[in-house]
Amino acid sequence: MASRIEIGLIRVISTQEPAVLDAHGTLIENKYPGLRVRSACIPDHPTGIYDQCTEQSAIAAIIRIGNHLAALGCHAIIVSCANDPGVFELRQQLTIPIIGAGSAAACLARSLTDRIGVISIVSSSPPVMTSILGNTLIGTKKPAGINTTLDLASHEAFHATLVAARQLSKAGARALVLACTGYSTIQAAPLLQKRIHIPVIDPVLAAGWTSLHAIRETHIA
Amino acid sequence: MASRIEIGLIRVISTQEPAVLDAHGTLIENKYPGLRVRSACIPDHPTGIYDQCTEQSAIAAIIRIGNHLAALGCHAIIVSCANDPGVFELRQQLTIPIIGAGSAAACLARSLTDRIGVISIVSSSPPVMTSILGNTLIGTKKPAGINTTLDLASHEAFHATLVAARQLSKAGARALVLACTGYSTIQAAPLLQKRIHIPVIDPVLAAGWTSLHAIRETHIA
Repeated sequence: MASRIEIGLIRVISTQEPAVLDAHGTLIENKYPGLRVRSACIPDHPTGIYDQCTEQSAIAAIIRIGNHLAALGCHAIIVSCANDPGVFELRQQLTIPIIGAGSAAACLARSLTDRIGVISIVSSSPPVMTSILGNTLIGTKKPAGINTTLDLASHEAFHATLVAARQLSKAGARALVLACTGYSTIQAAPLLQKRIHIPVIDPVLAAGWTSLHAIRETHIA
Repeated sequence: MASRIEIGLIRVISTQEPAVLDAHGTLIENKYPGLRVRSACIPDHPTGIYDQCTEQSAIAAIIRIGNHLAALGCHAIIVSCANDPGVFELRQQLTIPIIGAGSAAACLARSLTDRIGVISIVSSSPPVMTSILGNTLIGTKKPAGINTTLDLASHEAFHATLVAARQLSKAGARALVLACTGYSTIQAAPLLQKRIHIPVIDPVLAAGWTSLHAIRETHIA
């Protein structure tokens, strides 16, 4: 059985390396020491989820892994992807809190301000974010040269992201949401925030923050 | 000057009693010991805000008081009303985070689940909540016999609210939002949560939680 406050986290990129598997869980544990995270990943998605096709093929695996983590005793589950794949379906099947990194980040941004920009690795914002942000979404930018989460780890990718962030800030954004959890892996949010001087919401940490609330404040014994 | 993490809180009910003035600030300070809250109230609204007319007349005062709290050095401002009156306007004028209790509560609920019920003291949900919750809003209930925030302090009012909460839960709600900060004053959320076994979001504490994030995680020095 999991300890009382263990959270399951589903990575939507396939890996056999423990450091990669645990990367998001470690970020959350370091930021919120009260939380313990048990990570699992989906099979057959070595480049993650970046379009409708890869998302559809991932959902069945996410549902299966989510049920497994719940059976192990996890008290909440994070789907660590900005598109919230499988979140709706897992909520239908399980009674524990199911937290999507995309919805958590968008909700957090919308609670802070009403002029929000999204940085996405595809040409539009994830539908779950568009739905939550409504008319507070002032614009979406796709940094040049980035197409999957694996493209984010270079100096050029960070520079392209900073250019996109500055464009959104100049267009009037008062907060930004990073619509790919690969940005969490490279810890881009604080670096961007220091340079553009508006809050930049990290999707994995937003999911951790929301889980913290789910576990501590509204835990149903 | 305020200390580094002081938050201003605007009460939308007129009072000269310090215990009433500080009621919401004290709730936040007790729940989140890292926060200090400086409260102020609007004049000429002895029964609070409960319709479009009382809201319109309050907004100018909220804007004036918000600017005053910012000038005193507060690093964020909470408008402690489920309708978010003046939040949009204050965000236009000030660069510090402006947190509305209504939007904070709705965003928090939507980050936790996608079937949300609202308990309101008027016949509909506050527009700011309707907008944020979208199609995750499964229903709104107005407890019998309650018309203003001052009606909440009786045993009968709590019973009527519990009846409404049970109806929403039976209709499929997986979380409830209390759409009046008077419910925070009487600390109804944990009492309801214990009885209906789904998360019940308190608007004042949701605003405190969101302020905690604004101050700690995305503070722009």
